[in-house]
Amino acid sequence: MARKNAFYAQSGGVTATINTTACAVIETARRHRKHIGKVYAGRDGIIGALTEDLIDTSKDSAAAIRALRHTPGGAFGSCRYQLKPLEQSAAQYERLIEVFRAHDIGYFFYNGGNDSADTSYKMSQIAAKLGYPLACVGIPKTVDNDLALTDCCPGFGSVAKYVATSIREAGYDVASMARTSTRVFILEVMGRHAGWITAACGLAAEKEGDAPHLLLFPEIAFDQERFLAKVDEIVKRHGYCAIGVSEGLRWPDGKFVSESGLRDAFGHAQLGGVAPLMAQLVKEKLKLKYHWAVADYLQRSARHIASKTDALQSYAVGKAAVELAVKGRSGVMPIIVRKSDKPYRWAVGVAELRDIANAEKMMPRDYITEDGFHITAKCRQYLEPLVQGEDYPPYRNGLPAYVKLKNAPVPKKLGTPFNI
Amino acid sequence: MARKNAFYAQSGGVTATINTTACAVIETARRHRKHIGKVYAGRDGIIGALTEDLIDTSKDSAAAIRALRHTPGGAFGSCRYQLKPLEQSAAQYERLIEVFRAHDIGYFFYNGGNDSADTSYKMSQIAAKLGYPLACVGIPKTVDNDLALTDCCPGFGSVAKYVATSIREAGYDVASMARTSTRVFILEVMGRHAGWITAACGLAAEKEGDAPHLLLFPEIAFDQERFLAKVDEIVKRHGYCAIGVSEGLRWPDGKFVSESGLRDAFGHAQLGGVAPLMAQLVKEKLKLKYHWAVADYLQRSARHIASKTDALQSYAVGKAAVELAVKGRSGVMPIIVRKSDKPYRWAVGVAELRDIANAEKMMPRDYITEDGFHITAKCRQYLEPLVQGEDYPPYRNGLPAYVKLKNAPVPKKLGTPFNI
Repeated sequence: MARKNAFYAQSGGVTATINTTACAVIETARRHRKHIGKVYAGRDGIIGALTEDLIDTSKDSAAAIRALRHTPGGAFGSCRYQLKPLEQSAAQYERLIEVFRAHDIGYFFYNGGNDSADTSYKMSQIAAKLGYPLACVGIPKTVDNDLALTDCCPGFGSVAKYVATSIREAGYDVASMARTSTRVFILEVMGRHAGWITAACGLAAEKEGDAPHLLLFPEIAFDQERFLAKVDEIVKRHGYCAIGVSEGLRWPDGKFVSESGLRDAFGHAQLGGVAPLMAQLVKEKLKLKYHWAVADYLQRSARHIASKTDALQSYAVGKAAVELAVKGRSGVMPIIVRKSDKPYRWAVGVAELRDIANAEKMMPRDYITEDGFHITAKCRQYLEPLVQGEDYPPYRNGLPAYVKLKNAPVPKKLGTPFNI
Repeated sequence: MARKNAFYAQSGGVTATINTTACAVIETARRHRKHIGKVYAGRDGIIGALTEDLIDTSKDSAAAIRALRHTPGGAFGSCRYQLKPLEQSAAQYERLIEVFRAHDIGYFFYNGGNDSADTSYKMSQIAAKLGYPLACVGIPKTVDNDLALTDCCPGFGSVAKYVATSIREAGYDVASMARTSTRVFILEVMGRHAGWITAACGLAAEKEGDAPHLLLFPEIAFDQERFLAKVDEIVKRHGYCAIGVSEGLRWPDGKFVSESGLRDAFGHAQLGGVAPLMAQLVKEKLKLKYHWAVADYLQRSARHIASKTDALQSYAVGKAAVELAVKGRSGVMPIIVRKSDKPYRWAVGVAELRDIANAEKMMPRDYITEDGFHITAKCRQYLEPLVQGEDYPPYRNGLPAYVKLKNAPVPKKLGTPFNI
């Protein structure tokens, strides 16, 4: 293929290391000038391609791109915008091809989760159908760790390190206050459908009595009586109880616990916040003092405590994506392949996008203890390597020195509007 | 004074660096064996002294004590237990002297906030009155930064670094999602009466447009209409708005906002959680998507991102306390004295406990911008040095390696019970 420009977009919720992948894509593309001209990024993800709102990453220096490696968030903007199925909205896909053709784009890199793998797969199909030469490569990213085929998802290891560290630290705090004050501490973490992040909290409990003492997974229906009995028992045994709870905890009827509880002063349902609800329950039924925390975006943007393993893998998949594309591969995604647990060894493999698209990897039941309240040794064996190593950002004035790119627009060539 | 044992206790809410001070007290005492025998710690703070439940710190190795330096929480347990005024409860103070006499204790180190300074002061008075030789030295500690006379409080710099880093990171996240998803992000931080921690969030905003865009201080009565107008304006200008809010935010009538809002399914007032209330307001009135986080204990136990300045100062006050005591000083507290802002230079000074006891240092009004929604350059000048430098703990299995001491009990000599 003659030298072509590349398009890169970030999709869905961002992570502490999605920019590490962006850094790898741009740095690797810059080393393949024979094949790749400029890397254009979509402003706010795929929306940037649809609206011909492209960012010229060549306007940023090597140092600025290098700094992306340690910067959280999505440097070019991301979006929650799913392309409709091909048969319903061929116009969207044709528009993308039109924009790519106008800007001489021959490489399509889409950095996201299940939906994005699906979009990348469809792009490879429509390009082939229209006879437009386009190497479509998906790049994995999601804090939820729910992509199929890859051993783990870039972005997950860092949130895992953050939540495990946080609940360990809070556990030390509560343990010292329990005599006269807080007995129960509840940390709410992300993961609406899969309990991987909740499970990661469990890493902090290395031996009997360590925090967290109890985990509430989205996979295990919430049983209020069993939960309260367990908290009571733990407080009696250890003096306090630290709990990690998934935002996606459900009642036995499948409804989210977070949607059933709080009402504001006007009687409207309060969205989010399963932690305060659990706290209220503990107070009402067990008469114990509580504290609760909701980590929310803090957990997925905590680049200051990123996992080095995760940072290396996030970079590796970005680099591999470009290398696959220049070799002419399309409709594929680089994945992480585990070679051994201890010592942990991994490599980058390749999967077909059609095998990843829209599949969801749930926690195996044998990663959760029989009583449903903690992780098993098998789960620990899987998770432990993913949080290994620290990868500190540089600091300036006492705070992490993150980069903001120029995000210079590429002059429009079509100029035709497209309603998203 | 002949060689005597020392008593050390932690008081009130713990911090990321109160154990750094404990480490300094024990290490320094071990270097003054001519004056100080053993260091006994109160199990769960002053309650340990009242109930003759003492911990023999000599049972822990030099390496274990050294590891205290980087361990959050309160290693010996803390408590929220205030001694009553002398005239109401002489029995409590006399009991303390009785326990100290039984265990040959000649040094009293009390590590806490305003109340603790008051208790230390009263101890020095009652010891003098009873003719019992006791060097009483208070040691400052509080995340709230509200102690009088000292330039800053050990423990505050680390929570300041944590909240500023966290809101910067979340700001990068929200900025990248704002096009199609979250527009407003709210982080709730501690500081029920003084807005120092809220102010520290402001450090992350180094230039126009940086997160956080808006701060809600406990010192500034909450004006709902002005707040909403400001959020609307910021979202229109920057595309998103990141907000730091104090848990102690109050309505114009002085009532806590957190106590006025949410009700659970049974109609009970939901304690805590001003962030979800602000979020609900933003959704109802401005129709903007939101996310919110409540850092709670995570902020004050985040030893993984402690300020080096804070760690050094936390150690320095502990060391100075012992040195003052062996020189025969009593009724005093080592404090931090600022010598210059830039370059930041500081030293340890000495203040009288009676001048610190029960005073509260509020944020000066000129540290808050005129509109009440951010910090001034003067505030930044004060805060910036306090978050300088990183002081990472060691890691094991990918997580911070914190120590748990043996906390071996000292055999009781009195054996008489005391009801607390």
